[in-house]
Amino acid sequence: MTEATHTVKSYEQELERLRSLMARMGGLVERQTARAVSAIVDRDEEAAAEAPELDPEVDSLEREAEALAIRILALRSPMAVDLREIVAALKITGDLERIGDYASSIARRAMKLEMENNLSLIGLRNMGRLVQENLRRGIDALTQRDRDRAIEVWQSDTAVDELYTAMFRELVTYMMEDPRNIGACIHLLFVAKNLERIGDHTTNIAERVYYAATGEMLPSVRPRGGLGPTTVA
Amino acid sequence: MTEATHTVKSYEQELERLRSLMARMGGLVERQTARAVSAIVDRDEEAAAEAPELDPEVDSLEREAEALAIRILALRSPMAVDLREIVAALKITGDLERIGDYASSIARRAMKLEMENNLSLIGLRNMGRLVQENLRRGIDALTQRDRDRAIEVWQSDTAVDELYTAMFRELVTYMMEDPRNIGACIHLLFVAKNLERIGDHTTNIAERVYYAATGEMLPSVRPRGGLGPTTVA
Repeated sequence: MTEATHTVKSYEQELERLRSLMARMGGLVERQTARAVSAIVDRDEEAAAEAPELDPEVDSLEREAEALAIRILALRSPMAVDLREIVAALKITGDLERIGDYASSIARRAMKLEMENNLSLIGLRNMGRLVQENLRRGIDALTQRDRDRAIEVWQSDTAVDELYTAMFRELVTYMMEDPRNIGACIHLLFVAKNLERIGDHTTNIAERVYYAATGEMLPSVRPRGGLGPTTVA
Repeated sequence: MTEATHTVKSYEQELERLRSLMARMGGLVERQTARAVSAIVDRDEEAAAEAPELDPEVDSLEREAEALAIRILALRSPMAVDLREIVAALKITGDLERIGDYASSIARRAMKLEMENNLSLIGLRNMGRLVQENLRRGIDALTQRDRDRAIEVWQSDTAVDELYTAMFRELVTYMMEDPRNIGACIHLLFVAKNLERIGDHTTNIAERVYYAATGEMLPSVRPRGGLGPTTVA
Protein backbone atom coordinates (compact mmCIF):
# COMPACT_ATOMS: atom_id res chain seq x y z
CA MET A 1 0.00 0.00 0.00
CA THR A 2 1.42 3.41 -0.85
CA GLU A 3 1.68 6.17 1.69
CA ALA A 4 -0.97 8.21 -0.15
CA THR A 5 -3.50 5.37 -0.24
CA HIS A 6 -2.92 4.75 3.42
CA THR A 7 -3.57 8.40 4.29
CA VAL A 8 -6.75 8.49 2.24
CA LYS A 9 -7.98 5.30 3.84
CA SER A 10 -7.42 6.56 7.40
CA TYR A 11 -9.10 9.81 6.51
CA GLU A 12 -12.19 7.99 5.22
CA GLN A 13 -12.13 5.81 8.33
CA GLU A 14 -12.01 8.84 10.60
CA LEU A 15 -14.90 10.46 8.77
CA GLU A 16 -16.89 7.21 9.03
CA ARG A 17 -16.09 7.05 12.72
CA LEU A 18 -17.37 10.62 13.19
CA ARG A 19 -20.57 9.68 11.35
CA SER A 20 -20.99 6.63 13.52
CA LEU A 21 -20.55 8.71 16.70
CA MET A 22 -23.17 11.17 15.46
CA ALA A 23 -25.55 8.31 14.62
CA ARG A 24 -25.11 6.81 18.09
CA MET A 25 -25.65 10.17 19.73
CA GLY A 26 -28.77 10.69 17.60
CA GLY A 27 -30.08 7.24 18.50
CA LEU A 28 -29.57 7.91 22.19
CA VAL A 29 -31.41 11.23 22.29
CA GLU A 30 -34.21 9.67 20.23
CA ARG A 31 -34.46 7.00 22.92
CA GLN A 32 -34.37 9.65 25.67
CA THR A 33 -37.17 11.56 23.98
CA ALA A 34 -39.30 8.43 23.51
CA ARG A 35 -38.83 7.47 27.16
CA ALA A 36 -39.61 11.00 28.33
CA VAL A 37 -42.87 11.07 26.39
CA SER A 38 -43.83 7.65 27.81
CA ALA A 39 -42.95 8.84 31.27
CA ILE A 40 -45.48 11.65 30.97
CA VAL A 41 -48.33 10.26 28.89
CA ASP A 42 -48.22 6.62 30.06
CA ARG A 43 -47.12 7.53 33.60
CA ASP A 44 -44.31 5.01 33.09
CA GLU A 45 -41.91 5.26 36.05
CA GLU A 46 -39.21 3.08 34.55
CA ALA A 47 -39.15 5.28 31.47
CA ALA A 48 -38.93 8.37 33.71
CA ALA A 49 -35.89 6.92 35.45
CA GLU A 50 -34.18 5.81 32.22
CA ALA A 51 -34.16 9.07 30.27
CA PRO A 52 -31.86 11.05 32.62
CA GLU A 53 -29.64 7.97 33.12
CA LEU A 54 -28.60 8.26 29.47
CA ASP A 55 -27.30 11.85 29.91
CA PRO A 56 -23.69 10.94 30.80
CA GLU A 57 -23.42 8.72 27.70
CA VAL A 58 -24.77 11.51 25.49
CA ASP A 59 -22.30 13.98 27.04
CA SER A 60 -19.42 11.58 26.57
CA LEU A 61 -20.35 10.94 22.90
CA GLU A 62 -20.55 14.70 22.39
CA ARG A 63 -17.04 15.16 23.74
CA GLU A 64 -15.71 12.23 21.71
CA ALA A 65 -17.30 13.47 18.47
CA GLU A 66 -15.95 16.97 19.06
CA ALA A 67 -12.45 15.74 19.83
CA LEU A 68 -12.50 13.63 16.66
CA ALA A 69 -13.84 16.52 14.55
CA ILE A 70 -11.05 18.77 15.85
CA ARG A 71 -8.50 16.04 15.15
CA ILE A 72 -9.71 15.68 11.57
CA LEU A 73 -9.63 19.45 11.10
CA ALA A 74 -6.10 19.66 12.49
CA LEU A 75 -4.51 16.70 10.73
CA ARG A 76 -6.46 16.32 7.50
CA SER A 77 -7.34 19.86 6.45
CA PRO A 78 -10.61 18.70 4.86
CA MET A 79 -12.09 20.78 2.05
CA ALA A 80 -15.50 21.63 0.59
CA VAL A 81 -18.24 19.11 1.37
CA ASP A 82 -16.13 17.25 3.97
CA LEU A 83 -15.26 20.46 5.76
CA ARG A 84 -18.93 21.46 5.79
CA GLU A 85 -19.91 18.07 7.16
CA ILE A 86 -17.39 18.29 10.00
CA VAL A 87 -18.40 21.83 10.92
CA ALA A 88 -22.06 20.72 10.81
CA ALA A 89 -21.20 17.83 13.13
CA LEU A 90 -19.64 20.28 15.60
CA LYS A 91 -22.85 22.33 15.63
CA ILE A 92 -25.26 19.37 15.58
CA THR A 93 -23.69 17.77 18.66
CA GLY A 94 -24.83 20.90 20.52
CA ASP A 95 -28.41 20.49 19.27
CA LEU A 96 -28.45 16.79 20.13
CA GLU A 97 -27.10 17.48 23.61
CA ARG A 98 -29.85 20.07 24.18
CA ILE A 99 -32.53 17.64 22.96
CA GLY A 100 -31.27 15.03 25.43
CA ASP A 101 -31.32 17.70 28.12
CA TYR A 102 -34.92 18.68 27.38
CA ALA A 103 -35.95 15.01 27.35
CA SER A 104 -34.35 14.46 30.76
CA SER A 105 -36.05 17.55 32.08
CA ILE A 106 -39.42 16.17 30.89
CA ALA A 107 -38.70 12.81 32.55
CA ARG A 108 -37.77 14.47 35.83
CA ARG A 109 -40.99 16.47 35.76
CA ALA A 110 -42.89 13.22 35.15
CA MET A 111 -41.45 11.87 38.39
CA LYS A 112 -42.61 14.93 40.29
CA LEU A 113 -45.99 15.17 38.66
CA GLU A 114 -48.86 14.36 40.96
CA MET A 115 -52.03 14.01 38.98
CA GLU A 116 -54.77 13.84 41.59
CA ASN A 117 -57.26 14.54 38.88
CA ASN A 118 -58.22 13.52 35.41
CA LEU A 119 -56.41 16.06 33.28
CA SER A 120 -56.50 14.94 29.68
CA LEU A 121 -53.10 14.09 28.24
CA ILE A 122 -54.33 13.55 24.66
CA GLY A 123 -52.88 16.83 23.40
CA LEU A 124 -49.51 16.07 24.93
CA ARG A 125 -49.60 12.54 23.52
CA ASN A 126 -50.21 13.89 20.00
CA MET A 127 -47.52 16.50 20.39
CA GLY A 128 -45.08 13.90 21.73
CA ARG A 129 -45.80 11.59 18.81
CA LEU A 130 -45.21 14.32 16.24
CA VAL A 131 -42.02 15.59 17.87
CA GLN A 132 -40.64 12.04 18.05
CA GLU A 133 -41.56 11.38 14.43
CA ASN A 134 -39.80 14.58 13.31
CA LEU A 135 -36.77 13.82 15.42
CA ARG A 136 -36.54 10.30 13.97
CA ARG A 137 -36.68 11.70 10.44
CA GLY A 138 -34.19 14.44 11.37
CA ILE A 139 -31.70 11.84 12.62
CA ASP A 140 -32.31 9.82 9.42
CA ALA A 141 -31.59 12.91 7.34
CA LEU A 142 -28.41 13.38 9.37
CA THR A 143 -27.12 9.82 9.09
CA GLN A 144 -28.04 9.52 5.40
CA ARG A 145 -26.98 13.10 4.57
CA ASP A 146 -30.34 13.37 2.82
CA ARG A 147 -31.18 16.93 1.85
CA ASP A 148 -34.75 16.20 0.70
CA ARG A 149 -35.59 14.62 4.01
CA ALA A 150 -33.97 17.60 5.73
CA ILE A 151 -36.38 19.94 3.92
CA GLU A 152 -39.36 17.79 4.94
CA VAL A 153 -38.31 17.90 8.60
CA TRP A 154 -37.69 21.62 8.44
CA GLN A 155 -41.17 22.22 7.06
CA SER A 156 -43.08 20.04 9.49
CA ASP A 157 -42.12 21.97 12.62
CA THR A 158 -45.11 24.28 12.06
CA ALA A 159 -47.49 21.47 13.05
CA VAL A 160 -45.61 21.08 16.35
CA ASP A 161 -46.07 24.76 17.05
CA GLU A 162 -49.79 24.54 16.38
CA LEU A 163 -50.18 21.62 18.78
CA TYR A 164 -48.18 23.55 21.37
CA THR A 165 -50.51 26.54 21.13
CA ALA A 166 -53.56 24.26 21.52
CA MET A 167 -51.97 22.53 24.56
CA PHE A 168 -51.18 25.88 26.11
CA ARG A 169 -54.83 26.99 25.91
CA GLU A 170 -56.09 23.71 27.27
CA LEU A 171 -53.77 23.74 30.27
CA VAL A 172 -54.59 27.33 31.16
CA THR A 173 -58.28 26.44 31.07
CA TYR A 174 -57.70 23.61 33.58
CA MET A 175 -55.86 25.99 35.87
CA MET A 176 -58.65 28.55 35.72
CA GLU A 177 -61.30 25.93 36.41
CA ASP A 178 -59.68 24.59 39.55
CA PRO A 179 -56.66 26.01 41.38
CA ARG A 180 -55.81 22.49 42.58
CA ASN A 181 -54.74 21.83 38.98
CA ILE A 182 -52.16 24.63 39.04
CA GLY A 183 -49.17 22.59 40.25
CA ALA A 184 -49.63 19.77 37.74
CA CYS A 185 -50.50 22.13 34.90
CA ILE A 186 -47.35 24.20 35.37
CA HIS A 187 -45.28 21.04 35.02
CA LEU A 188 -47.27 20.09 31.90
CA LEU A 189 -46.85 23.59 30.43
CA PHE A 190 -43.09 23.25 30.76
CA VAL A 191 -43.25 19.73 29.32
CA ALA A 192 -45.12 21.09 26.29
CA LYS A 193 -42.57 23.91 26.00
CA ASN A 194 -39.70 21.42 26.19
CA LEU A 195 -41.27 19.32 23.44
CA GLU A 196 -41.63 22.43 21.35
CA ARG A 197 -37.93 23.20 21.94
CA ILE A 198 -36.98 19.65 20.91
CA GLY A 199 -38.87 20.39 17.68
CA ASP A 200 -36.89 23.61 17.35
CA HIS A 201 -33.54 21.87 17.70
CA THR A 202 -34.69 19.17 15.26
CA THR A 203 -35.29 22.01 12.78
CA ASN A 204 -31.76 23.31 13.46
CA ILE A 205 -30.34 19.88 12.69
CA ALA A 206 -32.30 19.74 9.41
CA GLU A 207 -30.92 23.18 8.46
CA ARG A 208 -27.37 22.04 9.20
CA VAL A 209 -27.77 18.79 7.25
CA TYR A 210 -29.12 20.72 4.29
CA TYR A 211 -26.25 23.19 4.39
CA ALA A 212 -23.62 20.46 4.75
CA ALA A 213 -25.07 18.58 1.77
CA THR A 214 -25.61 21.53 -0.54
CA GLY A 215 -23.51 24.48 0.61
CA GLU A 216 -26.74 26.52 0.51
CA MET A 217 -28.65 27.91 3.50
CA LEU A 218 -32.35 27.29 3.96
CA PRO A 219 -34.16 30.64 4.37
CA SER A 220 -33.26 32.31 7.66
CA VAL A 221 -36.91 32.79 8.59
CA ARG A 222 -37.91 29.33 9.58
CA PRO A 223 -40.92 27.89 11.38
CA ARG A 224 -40.49 29.03 14.99
CA GLY A 225 -42.12 28.34 18.33
CA GLY A 226 -44.92 30.67 19.37
CA LEU A 227 -45.41 32.12 22.80
CA GLY A 228 -48.84 30.59 23.21
CA PRO A 229 -51.98 32.67 22.90
CA THR A 230 -52.06 36.18 24.34
CA THR A 231 -55.35 36.10 26.14
CA VAL A 232 -56.11 33.34 28.53
CA ALA A 233 -59.45 34.30 29.99
CA MET B 1 7.37 42.00 2.37
CA THR B 2 8.08 38.31 1.87
CA GLU B 3 5.35 35.87 0.90
CA ALA B 4 5.56 34.14 4.32
CA THR B 5 5.19 37.40 6.27
CA HIS B 6 2.25 38.33 4.13
CA THR B 7 0.51 35.02 4.80
CA VAL B 8 1.08 35.29 8.55
CA LYS B 9 -0.20 38.82 8.56
CA SER B 10 -3.44 37.95 6.74
CA TYR B 11 -3.93 34.99 9.04
CA GLU B 12 -3.62 37.19 12.13
CA GLN B 13 -5.96 39.70 10.50
CA GLU B 14 -8.55 37.01 9.84
CA LEU B 15 -8.35 35.77 13.41
CA GLU B 16 -8.73 39.35 14.67
CA ARG B 17 -11.71 39.82 12.39
CA LEU B 18 -13.32 36.66 13.80
CA ARG B 19 -12.73 37.96 17.33
CA SER B 20 -14.25 41.27 16.43
CA LEU B 21 -17.35 39.56 14.97
CA MET B 22 -17.72 37.53 18.17
CA ALA B 23 -17.34 40.66 20.29
CA ARG B 24 -20.00 42.47 18.25
CA MET B 25 -22.34 39.53 18.49
CA GLY B 26 -21.73 39.34 22.25
CA GLY B 27 -22.38 43.07 22.63
CA LEU B 28 -25.63 42.79 20.71
CA VAL B 29 -27.07 39.92 22.76
CA GLU B 30 -26.02 41.72 25.94
CA ARG B 31 -28.01 44.70 24.70
CA GLN B 32 -30.97 42.45 23.82
CA THR B 33 -30.90 40.93 27.29
CA ALA B 34 -30.70 44.33 29.01
CA ARG B 35 -33.62 45.63 26.94
CA ALA B 36 -35.65 42.48 27.60
CA VAL B 37 -35.18 42.82 31.36
CA SER B 38 -36.18 46.51 31.20
CA ALA B 39 -39.20 45.60 29.11
CA ILE B 40 -40.44 43.32 31.87
CA VAL B 41 -39.41 44.97 35.12
CA ASP B 42 -39.71 48.63 34.10
CA ARG B 43 -42.64 47.97 31.75
CA ASP B 44 -40.61 49.83 29.10
CA GLU B 45 -42.40 49.48 25.75
CA GLU B 46 -39.57 50.89 23.67
CA ALA B 47 -37.20 48.36 25.17
CA ALA B 48 -39.71 45.59 24.43
CA ALA B 49 -39.83 46.63 20.79
CA GLU B 50 -36.06 46.99 20.45
CA ALA B 51 -34.91 43.55 21.65
CA PRO B 52 -36.52 41.49 18.84
CA GLU B 53 -35.52 44.11 16.25
CA LEU B 54 -31.89 43.18 16.87
CA ASP B 55 -32.46 39.50 15.97
CA PRO B 56 -31.69 39.79 12.24
CA GLU B 57 -28.36 41.50 12.98
CA VAL B 58 -27.43 38.77 15.47
CA ASP B 59 -28.34 36.09 12.92
CA SER B 60 -26.35 37.80 10.23
CA LEU B 61 -23.29 38.15 12.48
CA GLU B 62 -23.63 34.46 13.36
CA ARG B 63 -23.56 33.50 9.70
CA GLU B 64 -20.66 35.84 8.98
CA ALA B 65 -18.60 34.52 11.91
CA GLU B 66 -19.28 30.93 10.89
CA ALA B 67 -18.38 31.54 7.27
CA LEU B 68 -15.13 33.20 8.35
CA ALA B 69 -14.32 30.38 10.79
CA ILE B 70 -14.84 27.82 8.02
CA ARG B 71 -12.69 29.89 5.67
CA ILE B 72 -9.85 30.05 8.20
CA LEU B 73 -10.13 26.28 8.81
CA ALA B 74 -10.07 25.57 5.09
CA LEU B 75 -7.29 27.93 4.01
CA ARG B 76 -5.06 28.28 7.06
CA SER B 77 -5.14 24.87 8.73
CA PRO B 78 -4.76 26.43 12.19
CA MET B 79 -3.22 24.32 14.96
CA ALA B 80 -3.37 23.99 18.75
CA VAL B 81 -4.65 27.07 20.57
CA ASP B 82 -5.81 28.80 17.34
CA LEU B 83 -7.72 25.71 16.24
CA ARG B 84 -9.37 25.46 19.66
CA GLU B 85 -10.30 29.13 19.54
CA ILE B 86 -11.93 28.79 16.11
CA VAL B 87 -13.85 25.66 17.09
CA ALA B 88 -14.95 27.43 20.29
CA ALA B 89 -16.15 30.37 18.19
CA LEU B 90 -18.26 28.00 16.06
CA LYS B 91 -19.92 26.63 19.20
CA ILE B 92 -20.23 29.97 21.02
CA THR B 93 -22.09 31.62 18.12
CA GLY B 94 -24.81 29.03 18.78
CA ASP B 95 -25.01 29.96 22.46
CA LEU B 96 -25.07 33.68 21.68
CA GLU B 97 -27.82 33.18 19.11
CA ARG B 98 -29.90 31.27 21.68
CA ILE B 99 -29.35 34.00 24.28
CA GLY B 100 -30.60 36.59 21.81
CA ASP B 101 -33.55 34.34 21.08
CA TYR B 102 -34.47 34.00 24.75
CA ALA B 103 -34.13 37.77 25.23
CA SER B 104 -36.47 38.41 22.30
CA SER B 105 -38.92 35.90 23.67
CA ILE B 106 -38.89 37.75 27.03
CA ALA B 107 -39.45 41.08 25.27
CA ARG B 108 -42.39 39.70 23.27
CA ARG B 109 -43.95 38.38 26.45
CA ALA B 110 -43.51 41.82 28.01
CA MET B 111 -45.60 43.27 25.18
CA LYS B 112 -48.36 40.75 25.82
CA LEU B 113 -48.26 40.97 29.58
CA GLU B 114 -51.29 42.60 31.10
CA MET B 115 -50.66 43.31 34.73
CA GLU B 116 -54.03 44.32 36.11
CA ASN B 117 -52.73 43.80 39.60
CA ASN B 118 -49.77 44.52 41.80
CA LEU B 119 -47.63 41.44 41.31
CA SER B 120 -44.19 42.09 42.75
CA LEU B 121 -41.40 42.08 40.19
CA ILE B 122 -38.56 42.39 42.71
CA GLY B 123 -37.50 38.75 42.32
CA LEU B 124 -37.42 39.06 38.57
CA ARG B 125 -35.50 42.33 38.79
CA ASN B 126 -32.84 40.67 40.96
CA MET B 127 -32.66 37.66 38.71
CA GLY B 128 -32.41 39.88 35.62
CA ARG B 129 -29.62 41.92 37.20
CA LEU B 130 -27.59 38.83 38.09
CA VAL B 131 -28.07 37.17 34.69
CA GLN B 132 -27.00 40.38 32.95
CA GLU B 133 -23.97 40.76 35.18
CA ASN B 134 -22.89 37.16 34.46
CA LEU B 135 -23.47 37.59 30.76
CA ARG B 136 -21.40 40.77 30.73
CA ARG B 137 -18.54 38.98 32.49
CA GLY B 138 -18.94 35.98 30.19
CA ILE B 139 -18.60 38.18 27.11
CA ASP B 140 -15.57 39.85 28.74
CA ALA B 141 -14.01 36.43 29.32
CA LEU B 142 -14.69 35.63 25.68
CA THR B 143 -13.25 38.81 24.20
CA GLN B 144 -10.23 38.81 26.53
CA ARG B 145 -9.74 35.02 26.36
CA ASP B 146 -9.53 35.18 30.16
CA ARG B 147 -9.70 31.76 31.76
CA ASP B 148 -9.89 33.03 35.35
CA ARG B 149 -12.88 35.14 34.53
CA ALA B 150 -14.40 32.14 32.73
CA ILE B 151 -14.16 30.09 35.95
CA GLU B 152 -15.81 32.89 37.94
CA VAL B 153 -18.72 33.04 35.50
CA TRP B 154 -19.07 29.27 35.45
CA GLN B 155 -19.29 29.19 39.24
CA SER B 156 -21.79 31.98 39.69
CA ASP B 157 -24.63 30.31 37.77
CA THR B 158 -25.72 28.57 40.99
CA ALA B 159 -27.00 31.89 42.37
CA VAL B 160 -29.16 32.34 39.25
CA ASP B 161 -30.69 28.91 39.83
CA GLU B 162 -31.48 29.78 43.44
CA LEU B 163 -33.23 32.99 42.43
CA TYR B 164 -35.17 31.06 39.80
CA THR B 165 -36.44 28.57 42.37
CA ALA B 166 -37.53 31.41 44.67
CA MET B 167 -39.29 33.18 41.76
CA PHE B 168 -41.05 29.99 40.83
CA ARG B 169 -42.50 29.56 44.33
CA GLU B 170 -43.58 33.19 44.50
CA LEU B 171 -45.40 33.09 41.16
CA VAL B 172 -47.21 29.86 41.99
CA THR B 173 -48.39 31.43 45.24
CA TYR B 174 -49.86 34.39 43.32
CA MET B 175 -51.68 32.00 41.01
CA MET B 176 -53.14 30.03 43.89
CA GLU B 177 -54.28 33.19 45.67
CA ASP B 178 -56.20 34.57 42.74
CA PRO B 179 -56.96 32.80 39.44
CA ARG B 180 -57.02 36.21 37.74
CA ASN B 181 -53.23 36.22 38.18
CA ILE B 182 -52.83 33.02 36.19
CA GLY B 183 -52.37 34.56 32.73
CA ALA B 184 -49.74 37.08 33.82
CA CYS B 185 -47.97 34.61 36.09
CA ILE B 186 -47.57 32.04 33.32
CA HIS B 187 -45.83 34.66 31.20
CA LEU B 188 -43.63 35.58 34.17
CA LEU B 189 -42.83 31.91 34.85
CA PHE B 190 -41.59 31.55 31.28
CA VAL B 191 -39.66 34.82 31.57
CA ALA B 192 -37.93 33.48 34.68
CA LYS B 193 -37.23 30.21 32.87
CA ASN B 194 -35.79 32.10 29.88
CA LEU B 195 -33.52 34.11 32.17
CA GLU B 196 -32.38 30.87 33.76
CA ARG B 197 -31.62 29.50 30.28
CA ILE B 198 -29.63 32.63 29.41
CA GLY B 199 -27.61 31.86 32.54
CA ASP B 200 -27.15 28.31 31.30
CA HIS B 201 -25.83 29.41 27.91
CA THR B 202 -23.55 31.95 29.63
CA THR B 203 -22.11 28.99 31.56
CA ASN B 204 -21.61 27.13 28.26
CA ILE B 205 -19.70 30.10 26.86
CA ALA B 206 -17.49 30.19 29.96
CA GLU B 207 -16.74 26.45 29.55
CA ARG B 208 -15.82 26.98 25.90
CA VAL B 209 -13.59 29.97 26.66
CA TYR B 210 -11.82 27.99 29.35
CA TYR B 211 -11.27 25.03 27.03
CA ALA B 212 -10.04 27.21 24.19
CA ALA B 213 -7.56 28.96 26.48
CA THR B 214 -6.24 25.89 28.30
CA GLY B 215 -7.04 22.75 26.29
CA GLU B 216 -8.62 21.39 29.50
CA MET B 217 -12.31 20.82 30.14
CA LEU B 218 -14.04 22.18 33.22
CA PRO B 219 -15.76 19.32 35.10
CA SER B 220 -18.71 17.92 33.12
CA VAL B 221 -21.05 18.29 36.08
CA ARG B 222 -21.66 21.98 36.14
CA PRO B 223 -24.20 24.17 37.89
CA ARG B 224 -27.50 23.45 36.14
CA GLY B 225 -31.01 24.85 36.17
CA GLY B 226 -33.47 23.24 38.57
CA LEU B 227 -37.06 22.36 37.82
CA GLY B 228 -38.43 24.58 40.52
CA PRO B 229 -39.83 23.13 43.74
CA THR B 230 -41.87 19.93 43.65
CA THR B 231 -44.72 20.91 45.91
CA VAL B 232 -46.64 24.04 45.23
CA ALA B 233 -49.38 24.01 47.83
